[in-house]
Amino acid sequence: MIGRLNHVAIAVPDLAAATEQYRGALGADAGAPLSLPDHGVRVVFVTLPNTKIELMEPLGEESPIARFLEASPSGGLHHICYEVADIGAARDRLVETGARVLGDGTPKAGAHGKPVLFLHPKDFSGTLIELEEV
Amino acid sequence: MIGRLNHVAIAVPDLAAATEQYRGALGADAGAPLSLPDHGVRVVFVTLPNTKIELMEPLGEESPIARFLEASPSGGLHHICYEVADIGAARDRLVETGARVLGDGTPKAGAHGKPVLFLHPKDFSGTLIELEEV
Repeated sequence: MIGRLNHVAIAVPDLAAATEQYRGALGADAGAPLSLPDHGVRVVFVTLPNTKIELMEPLGEESPIARFLEASPSGGLHHICYEVADIGAARDRLVETGARVLGDGTPKAGAHGKPVLFLHPKDFSGTLIELEEV
Repeated sequence: MIGRLNHVAIAVPDLAAATEQYRGALGADAGAPLSLPDHGVRVVFVTLPNTKIELMEPLGEESPIARFLEASPSGGLHHICYEVADIGAARDRLVETGARVLGDGTPKAGAHGKPVLFLHPKDFSGTLIELEEV
């Protein structure tokens, strides 16, 4: 069912510093910062030959990554995003196997404007998984 | 400098259960378990079209992921591995920029038998980065 790894998301306390770590020390292709107020994050995408790294810092008072950074002030690996061809079919299959979809199960528009869902970390060995329809 | 994302490693408390999550609920191609006593882990690689997920459970008394699982008993995202063409040159560039290489800076043979190094999470927004020469 799952296809490509679309991206790995890293919560960071300082987006400019994290971008410089990737651009400078690691010599990677890091894009311009992009504010996503609907998602409560400001992001930079690092383009690798086969996938992307999403560096995210909190944006606004209600940022969903604020609590993560309270627990891990240095930042850390936050979630992984897998591509699926049909997000409705993916949700139905997951629910059938007993996995929990976060929220009300209705896909929302993600950072790339495509429908996304998040799965409960407790059903996947403590990892937060995003599914994105491509 | 960094090239492809070689893999994302997830520490799991129960490798069989994690494999079933990927094979069953997510419909992914998960391989056979492989014991790596030199690394203190037993692993299953999940093959995606563009990269791999490494599910790891502790093996032996001195497993390097035992402490991680004490702090996060459900498991979680553990490290990300980027490919480099020349690991000696990569290390020298990183040290020049002030980044810290774990251990004595000498590459060791990783899970795929190729030379690897780990970078200090404090220099990369709290993420443990493995570099693998390919």
